[in-house]
Amino acid sequence: MKGLYCDGSSIRLRDDLPTPIPGPGEVLLRVRIAGICDTDIQLAKGYLGFQGVLGHEFVGQTNTGRRVTAEINNACHVCPVCLDGRPGHCPHRTVLGIVGHDGAMAEQVVVPQVNLHEIPDEIDDREAVFIEPLAAAFRITEQLDLHPGLKMAILGDGKLGMLCAWVARTTGAQVSVIGKHASKLALAGEAITTHRLEEASTLAKRFDVVVDCTGSHSGFPTALGLVRPCGTVVLKTTVAGTYTVNLAGIVIDEVRVIGSRCGPFPKAIAALVNRQVNVRPLIGGEFTLDQAESAFRAASEKGARKILIQVAPESA
Amino acid sequence: MKGLYCDGSSIRLRDDLPTPIPGPGEVLLRVRIAGICDTDIQLAKGYLGFQGVLGHEFVGQTNTGRRVTAEINNACHVCPVCLDGRPGHCPHRTVLGIVGHDGAMAEQVVVPQVNLHEIPDEIDDREAVFIEPLAAAFRITEQLDLHPGLKMAILGDGKLGMLCAWVARTTGAQVSVIGKHASKLALAGEAITTHRLEEASTLAKRFDVVVDCTGSHSGFPTALGLVRPCGTVVLKTTVAGTYTVNLAGIVIDEVRVIGSRCGPFPKAIAALVNRQVNVRPLIGGEFTLDQAESAFRAASEKGARKILIQVAPESA
Ligand SMILES: [Zn+2]
Ligand SMILES: [Zn+2]
Repeated sequence: MKGLYCDGSSIRLRDDLPTPIPGPGEVLLRVRIAGICDTDIQLAKGYLGFQGVLGHEFVGQTNTGRRVTAEINNACHVCPVCLDGRPGHCPHRTVLGIVGHDGAMAEQVVVPQVNLHEIPDEIDDREAVFIEPLAAAFRITEQLDLHPGLKMAILGDGKLGMLCAWVARTTGAQVSVIGKHASKLALAGEAITTHRLEEASTLAKRFDVVVDCTGSHSGFPTALGLVRPCGTVVLKTTVAGTYTVNLAGIVIDEVRVIGSRCGPFPKAIAALVNRQVNVRPLIGGEFTLDQAESAFRAASEKGARKILIQVAPESA
Repeated sequence: MKGLYCDGSSIRLRDDLPTPIPGPGEVLLRVRIAGICDTDIQLAKGYLGFQGVLGHEFVGQTNTGRRVTAEINNACHVCPVCLDGRPGHCPHRTVLGIVGHDGAMAEQVVVPQVNLHEIPDEIDDREAVFIEPLAAAFRITEQLDLHPGLKMAILGDGKLGMLCAWVARTTGAQVSVIGKHASKLALAGEAITTHRLEEASTLAKRFDVVVDCTGSHSGFPTALGLVRPCGTVVLKTTVAGTYTVNLAGIVIDEVRVIGSRCGPFPKAIAALVNRQVNVRPLIGGEFTLDQAESAFRAASEKGARKILIQVAPESA
């Protein structure tokens, strides 16, 4: 079959990939559409050592014609971590298109049956690609008590930053997005305050919660400067390599720092069905699977919005 | 009056210090006894830029003969942070013997009336010196839900580590202390498991909560290795300067990191009265105020226990 393969240092469209064979408890899906996220761009450069088909944001179709997407962590479901209720942290897990499991930028993909979520008719394919990152944004609402009046700053005006800002707004929190790009900040919408990064120093210790969505080494120190004593910094993006950072402020100001990763698909699906979050302004372009390498170039451009790869839209 | 003065780079016993004059809302106390903590040793070397009389762990006596100690943060009580219920984080605060306010290693000391706590007869002077650091250990019980069955590791076998371990035990948590020194680990007592630091790699991702009391740059990375996914690392000691640390694990394992500083004096006093915590094994030696410089040398030795400075024991 055809698919976008990462050999550990670069990507290439191949048409000689074997059709994946479902193991016990797995299902084979025809892929309709996939999205490119910043993790994919890092993977494509070989930063995370993955070899295989990329793609973990997608819409597939079962052989009975149901439109589905899938959670990305494939857990063992029998180890102590899984039995303790944290399959997303299973030490034996593979991760769709990221760790040890071929992803969805191909004609077909195999995923565990238990990971499937059906996509309601109210959500079209382009929107449904955002279910996975939107769920990651909703993870914050599981970890923190967000509520009206809470002063939140989202640091970073990229796609994940915007999704976090919109999700935070659904809780009634007062949300500010702090970013580098006027054009991207303009997407935030009327109910959200925006600030250019240069203004960050005038906002010192102003926020109850700061969410670092920058994907940059400067994000964490900036977030520590923005949060009030006893406030919370959420680390939403991983940054490769080591940091040089002064942690004394965490102790002196008794700051809480929380790592945040994958989140609840049902909440993301409900928010799209109910039109609480409109992801369409985040779409930056569409390519076919044959144009996948060009799609990655477009997604790698500074300030790029979400690039979609239409794999088999005709099966809609 | 006589007192131990820090000029910003070294300490010296002086007998020409002016007797402090209480301002509005402040009281003048005769000092009975003071303790030396690791922060004092850093201050004495000039690391924190403080100039003045050292000492923030102490027992004083009012002019009516009451034995008292005092919380160390002197807040303004009118700023937004104070009015928001966090006077310990007042940006205008001074800190007894640490920031902008003369401390208690002197014949007399001035403190805010609202910071006073009377010492019950059941607690003698030597034990009462531990109220401040013991309160800091109890801070953890305000920040986290500690409970029977919780697996806790205390990293560091120094005085603060032991106090945190003993406080954690009062909640029924399963407590392990991980440290470098067999002689210090032996103080932990029967209800607490001890491990040498070399064993830490065999305990990876084993603990629900890890408290870093090492005061060392290696403490935080070690703590991140010991905590389970979605577990909590408490940073109890500040380390001067910048760290080089890989924070990706915080995101991937969704770890929570919490800074922890000063704590509730009433809980510490109650624990001493009720004999829930026995601090006596932590006392390493006693000196007079005239011997204060020697006392600091003793407190600076590797593995030193708490060194006390008897200022006016005869007034007991
Ligand atoms: Zn598992
Ligand atoms: Zn204040």
